[in-house]
Amino acid sequence: MRHFTSVNDVTDIQQLVALARELKKNPLQNSELGKNKTLGLIYFNPSLRTRLSTQKAAHNLGLRVMDMNVGSDSWTLEIRDDVVMDGAASEHIKEAAAVIGQYCDIIGIRSFPSLNDKETDYKEEVIQKFIKYSGVPVISLESATLHPLQSLADMMTIEELKTKKRPKVVLTWAAHPKALPQAVPNSFAEWMNKAEVDFVITHPEGYELDEKFTKGATITHNQDEALAGADFVYAKNWSSYTNYGNIICKDKTWMITEEKMALTNNAKFMHCLPIRRNVIASDAVLDGPNAVVIQEAGNRVWSAQAVLKTILETQF
Amino acid sequence: MRHFTSVNDVTDIQQLVALARELKKNPLQNSELGKNKTLGLIYFNPSLRTRLSTQKAAHNLGLRVMDMNVGSDSWTLEIRDDVVMDGAASEHIKEAAAVIGQYCDIIGIRSFPSLNDKETDYKEEVIQKFIKYSGVPVISLESATLHPLQSLADMMTIEELKTKKRPKVVLTWAAHPKALPQAVPNSFAEWMNKAEVDFVITHPEGYELDEKFTKGATITHNQDEALAGADFVYAKNWSSYTNYGNIICKDKTWMITEEKMALTNNAKFMHCLPIRRNVIASDAVLDGPNAVVIQEAGNRVWSAQAVLKTILETQF
Amino acid sequence: MRHFTSVNDVTDIQQLVALARELKKNPLQNSELGKNKTLGLIYFNPSLRTRLSTQKAAHNLGLRVMDMNVGSDSWTLEIRDDVVMDGAASEHIKEAAAVIGQYCDIIGIRSFPSLNDKETDYKEEVIQKFIKYSGVPVISLESATLHPLQSLADMMTIEELKTKKRPKVVLTWAAHPKALPQAVPNSFAEWMNKAEVDFVITHPEGYELDEKFTKGATITHNQDEALAGADFVYAKNWSSYTNYGNIICKDKTWMITEEKMALTNNAKFMHCLPIRRNVIASDAVLDGPNAVVIQEAGNRVWSAQAVLKTILETQF
Repeated sequence: MRHFTSVNDVTDIQQLVALARELKKNPLQNSELGKNKTLGLIYFNPSLRTRLSTQKAAHNLGLRVMDMNVGSDSWTLEIRDDVVMDGAASEHIKEAAAVIGQYCDIIGIRSFPSLNDKETDYKEEVIQKFIKYSGVPVISLESATLHPLQSLADMMTIEELKTKKRPKVVLTWAAHPKALPQAVPNSFAEWMNKAEVDFVITHPEGYELDEKFTKGATITHNQDEALAGADFVYAKNWSSYTNYGNIICKDKTWMITEEKMALTNNAKFMHCLPIRRNVIASDAVLDGPNAVVIQEAGNRVWSAQAVLKTILETQF
Repeated sequence: MRHFTSVNDVTDIQQLVALARELKKNPLQNSELGKNKTLGLIYFNPSLRTRLSTQKAAHNLGLRVMDMNVGSDSWTLEIRDDVVMDGAASEHIKEAAAVIGQYCDIIGIRSFPSLNDKETDYKEEVIQKFIKYSGVPVISLESATLHPLQSLADMMTIEELKTKKRPKVVLTWAAHPKALPQAVPNSFAEWMNKAEVDFVITHPEGYELDEKFTKGATITHNQDEALAGADFVYAKNWSSYTNYGNIICKDKTWMITEEKMALTNNAKFMHCLPIRRNVIASDAVLDGPNAVVIQEAGNRVWSAQAVLKTILETQF
Repeated sequence: MRHFTSVNDVTDIQQLVALARELKKNPLQNSELGKNKTLGLIYFNPSLRTRLSTQKAAHNLGLRVMDMNVGSDSWTLEIRDDVVMDGAASEHIKEAAAVIGQYCDIIGIRSFPSLNDKETDYKEEVIQKFIKYSGVPVISLESATLHPLQSLADMMTIEELKTKKRPKVVLTWAAHPKALPQAVPNSFAEWMNKAEVDFVITHPEGYELDEKFTKGATITHNQDEALAGADFVYAKNWSSYTNYGNIICKDKTWMITEEKMALTNNAKFMHCLPIRRNVIASDAVLDGPNAVVIQEAGNRVWSAQAVLKTILETQF
């Protein structure tokens, strides 16, 4: 594995999940592997879980970590090519990526979409230009359209908790006051479509995700029908992909409540976090025994550590 | 010691001070104690001394450190329970604390009061919820109402410098252009009330602190009388506790000057810093031979290291 | 070497360049030298290269690093003496420097000029007060008027790439939409004036730099004449020194293009970065084979490491 930006960078998904679970049991088994190597974590956007879990994973592997918030710690970057840079941006991503590649052996990039311009967002310019210009392995810490470290942790969590060979996993939209990226649902879909699960996506009309990621899943606008018999319920808001970046439904009945969970097969409740309580899911669901969001967040360490270990072993 | 949020968490104060002084002489005597453990330092507010001294203490013990500024590095947090989270906050402290507890073995929290709502501030919701939901030991890096790492360093400084068995220690209010928390004076009072000192607090009328912390101290509105014969003068502004969070006195004559210090028994001048020069104390006092504020700030390392060492030895 | 704020702190420049080149070949040869010592990196302004390269250099020497952004991580500082501090600043640089000196063995300071008050800027109050009050070695991470870690990396880059004993090095101004400091050209000039090069500075009228730094260089307003036969072209904008801090020329024909580079002796193109593309230099120049800006930025690690190593060996 050279880079980690999508499920398509992974040769053997089951093996990667197994590695993550193995590292969870024995976190320090490779504590010298990253010795004298440096991981740069570059944030264009806020981060809690990713920031802390990736650092922790790096420490477990003996890597040094340097992090930087773009625009506050450093300069505002220009992403577009062929521009006369007489505006706000002081530096071009071409130079920034190449320079950071001089100092770091592996680079992690967090960069959210604009939600204004679908074509640009879905070209994944920021992470792709870091790959092109840095000269070193690049890991997505959530890009404009995908969040693979989250999806790997999600798949690991399902593996840990499933009680049948082929569980039913339901990704359900819920309303939210702000327009959010499609990265988490896109990514979860492309991982679930490669997993041994029955995968169902449910959302209001107009919230269809890019087929590139969802193809193969069962998609329905009837949330109750989707939830029936579910073993895992994964709730998440996203803004419209077709009516790009807009909020076209504010229907609060999509919120996951105990009544909704009662339709399932005693399903575990999952969410990538941060989650707005009593907006995406009720307090009762989040505080109930079937919520596994903290375990899921904890697994972000082993997800990141499995990816970093694989890159360290194959690229150096 | 499980948590460190107040003097009441300490079994034997004299022993903790002695430990801090011992660590100052030999900082690296436990340099492997924290090996492969992670201290998370979470800041809701700015910090200079606490940020750097706690990191340094952690390094001396072999701990890894991860720090995070809430709201800029990460998401804005909701603190209240039973809220429909459709406002500015993206994440609830319940999840944030529990998640950070997944990544860190010990958590330090800095969180100032609102100064708007006395009841909420004095419930210490932020640090108490971190204790409740994180599942790991929690250290106060200054909470809404207390600053015990500062008080421990203060007590250590007095131990180092006292020339008699039972010195007179005076905490004096001074005017300040902004409304400040009561955390430092509350905390200093509750530590001094357990120390072998004659402890006097002086402030204008209306600046009475919560009796919970001050009970046992001599309290006077006559600053000159308080300063007479003092061995240590600890200056600090705070906003009113009774008229909560307000500035009700702007009397500049409370500033500590050479004339005021001349009333004392050649007292040492202490302050937790940051201090506004020529507002809280004059340049002449701060630049004079009796100012010990830098030694006091330096002792923050040993204060933090004594607390971290104690937690590492008793909790793991 | 006690401090590193200018070329004048260096006993033997050639030897320091040679050390940087030697460290580049063998980065980990002194990986225990800084053990249990702490480098504090204090930023009054944004930084990308300096932030990451200095950290990396410190890691290579086994130093622990603590960094802090003044004003966001910590408090706003008062720099002036004899002030009644009833304004925005919560802490005086006297206390901040002395306190940081309690926690760090070496301090790096980045502090840009105001560009409003020449006299104050050129007194270098921030870094000089850190030297005066911290009690430990201080390294400039770019001060109001100089950027010696950059200049050392620049000189090292010229040494690596020169094909003749005495190359012609041209520092050329170019127009820029914002008023920028004179620190990089001042510093480059004072280092080049001590190097075995033919050093030429070219800029529009009114952009004369302080003679203290440029004395000895050939200075011309004719850019084409300056570029003729150049082996190295170092482009950089700066605001006027005589008409202090102002932009007095917006002439875009000073931008370095392929046509301009054709006047040279197949010169290497240098810049300290960040650079505005198609403002300071064209895409064609920056993407062409003679641009060495990334190598130059990479050399910042060895520049910082040579300085840190020298201080560690001579001051402890």
